[in-house]
Amino acid sequence: MTFKRGLFLCLDGLDGSGKSTQCRLLADWLRAQGRTVTLCYEPGSTALGEQLRAIVLQHQHPVCLPAEALLFMASRAQLVADVIRPALAEGQTIVCDRFELSTIVYQGHAGGLDLQQLREVGRLATGELEPDLTLVLDLPLEQARARRDRPADRLESRDEAYHQRVREGFLAEAHRRPDRIKVLDASATTEAVQTLIREEVTRVLATGPWA
Amino acid sequence: MTFKRGLFLCLDGLDGSGKSTQCRLLADWLRAQGRTVTLCYEPGSTALGEQLRAIVLQHQHPVCLPAEALLFMASRAQLVADVIRPALAEGQTIVCDRFELSTIVYQGHAGGLDLQQLREVGRLATGELEPDLTLVLDLPLEQARARRDRPADRLESRDEAYHQRVREGFLAEAHRRPDRIKVLDASATTEAVQTLIREEVTRVLATGPWA
Repeated sequence: MTFKRGLFLCLDGLDGSGKSTQCRLLADWLRAQGRTVTLCYEPGSTALGEQLRAIVLQHQHPVCLPAEALLFMASRAQLVADVIRPALAEGQTIVCDRFELSTIVYQGHAGGLDLQQLREVGRLATGELEPDLTLVLDLPLEQARARRDRPADRLESRDEAYHQRVREGFLAEAHRRPDRIKVLDASATTEAVQTLIREEVTRVLATGPWA
Repeated sequence: MTFKRGLFLCLDGLDGSGKSTQCRLLADWLRAQGRTVTLCYEPGSTALGEQLRAIVLQHQHPVCLPAEALLFMASRAQLVADVIRPALAEGQTIVCDRFELSTIVYQGHAGGLDLQQLREVGRLATGELEPDLTLVLDLPLEQARARRDRPADRLESRDEAYHQRVREGFLAEAHRRPDRIKVLDASATTEAVQTLIREEVTRVLATGPWA
């Protein structure tokens, strides 16, 4: 008998790529199939995570780049400990809006921190838990910016070259881990993108030992 | 011509070992010799660090062990960026109450996190800056506890076995890095301990290329 745990799905990409909406639609669809779904987002989703989200995304105090990466990782550690691991052990499906890939891309590829060091910090934060599938919602910068429906936070207000490196970082990481990370064209309509997401999730559900 | 930077000194040890008092006395003595001294402590000493200090040392929200280590490291990253590196570059002497060794000992040796992972996180946080000399103020647990002059914080309220591992962790790290970490018997009077500290600092000042 193989031990079955829940499936851990992650959506990632630029702000304005439609992640939050697509996460909700995906969770609704999975629930309609009878699955118990926990929807979470980063940074946040725990009491500690919400405090750190406010610190790291607002312009209140200076936060240097290594501290920024470490705060995202601390929020992640608490999310894994309090929410993700317990839910997976119960056989729930996790849909998470951003996870470790975001830190690798935003603070590593775009920010310039050492990628190997960041991956090691990630191992400490997550205890080596990684999403079974990460879907990167890719679209041109101009389109992502036009879709953003609120004022820019501390990271979003960085310059265009930074966000171009973010986009390229996502593509580079997908190229590095084709078994775990897929890039989807998110420039189409919400419904069309959701269809692509469901196709990928259906594919991974058919292959794994998931509860 | 050799580039000279300031000397980076750290005092570490159990709570109640007299670190804060000894740091102040050491700073006074160094200033009396004409040195410009920056006195700082961890976690804290920056706006971000003070926010994180409140989160990690109070009992407000659950903080898992990896998150705890990452928050201490984030506070450290900001302290290095905003205070320690600029002061050393100006030729100032730094006296710091706790630094990376505390995380290695409290969350690693005592808490059980992987020491190699913690050292890698430390490299990201500090950019590989380490104190030129760390003095560990060592004394028996009962004596440290008796000296504590305020209510126990979240870490201090851990059990005796934890604090015994902390003490032994400090000794193990000093054994590992005899060139950088010295253990001093802190069970004597304040004046006697300060004399030992000044002897060690005098010795290191005579050897280095310090400003």
